[in-house]
Amino acid sequence: MSLDGFVAGPSQSVENPLGIGGTRLHEWAFGLAAFRAPHGLEGGEVNESTAVIQESLANIGATVMGRNMFGGHPGPWDAAKPWNGWWGIDPPFHHPVFVLTHHKRAPLELEGGTTFTFVTNGIEAALEQGRRAAGGKDVSLAGGASAAQQYLAAGLVDEMEISIVPTLLGGGERLFDGIGDDLHGLEHVRTVAAPNVTHVKFSRR
Amino acid sequence: MSLDGFVAGPSQSVENPLGIGGTRLHEWAFGLAAFRAPHGLEGGEVNESTAVIQESLANIGATVMGRNMFGGHPGPWDAAKPWNGWWGIDPPFHHPVFVLTHHKRAPLELEGGTTFTFVTNGIEAALEQGRRAAGGKDVSLAGGASAAQQYLAAGLVDEMEISIVPTLLGGGERLFDGIGDDLHGLEHVRTVAAPNVTHVKFSRR
Repeated sequence: MSLDGFVAGPSQSVENPLGIGGTRLHEWAFGLAAFRAPHGLEGGEVNESTAVIQESLANIGATVMGRNMFGGHPGPWDAAKPWNGWWGIDPPFHHPVFVLTHHKRAPLELEGGTTFTFVTNGIEAALEQGRRAAGGKDVSLAGGASAAQQYLAAGLVDEMEISIVPTLLGGGERLFDGIGDDLHGLEHVRTVAAPNVTHVKFSRR
Repeated sequence: MSLDGFVAGPSQSVENPLGIGGTRLHEWAFGLAAFRAPHGLEGGEVNESTAVIQESLANIGATVMGRNMFGGHPGPWDAAKPWNGWWGIDPPFHHPVFVLTHHKRAPLELEGGTTFTFVTNGIEAALEQGRRAAGGKDVSLAGGASAAQQYLAAGLVDEMEISIVPTLLGGGERLFDGIGDDLHGLEHVRTVAAPNVTHVKFSRR
């Protein structure tokens, strides 16, 4: 999240999935070995963010995300021109991913163990499918903002990590928008100051 | 600043100068000796925030603030019912304070070395008066959000400390509102993770 509260910049598009300036929110991670490994890249640095990334990836059996985060597709899926999202042929998840959408679609199996399943009957159903697929491991809520807000407001978030980057985006998608002053049972448990980012973690009381 | 970007809560009033929930942004400081001393209080704790508070108070010769921060007075000053602001008879500044306002008023001298001077000819004039009064020391820009935004946009801020509190206010006054994606020459220089607050500092390149 930027210092002014945005998790994506303005004018998101297929060419610019994170919005204008949105990649600045992720630059702290790109050079780290802990980030590069799940993306199939060797080498990289180790710093205070390393343990935070490792913790966020450990024990994850499934991921839930909004349709913007899958690929920003606004309308019905076009079977003639399949759009496989922003994650390439070998997405970095390597486990089942459940995509919140209003439009039915057959599951999309990609390389490396990532299958996108499209869930049209709401956030609780997607979480339940994620739980079953995770087989006792945790379910990661990847975002974006709208999905995070819905799960937060429903009291379905047990842990939340906000990585604050000291930059301004000036517009785009706010993480905390329309959810009032209520963290819905979450409380602050720790803060890690790392190069170019601060990780603030919350857990359910 | 709250995690959702507010430096004051909603519904600011004379009874509730920080807005609903706004005191939550300052609770990390109340128990600290470094905060209590300038307010004439003895005792208190020492933690990672102590050096940040001391640094923010060191070498300050004058303060500039918006009229909301002085006392939230919207209209012309009423000489029959003088309103001396929110800071009590012995404000914690102990040096000259320049208040941005559209309404002329004679300087207000209070106890402990704090004199409020009301400046009606703009932010640059207030800064210039602050510089002269500071006699070579620094001028502190105390806020609120509107004053901070104006000085930032004008490129007149040399150092900025944002103290982020892991809570949501859900509404109120945003620190970064309408200033776009530009830090106007400031760059991030350090972060301090302290109990219940994270201090993020920026300096001019």
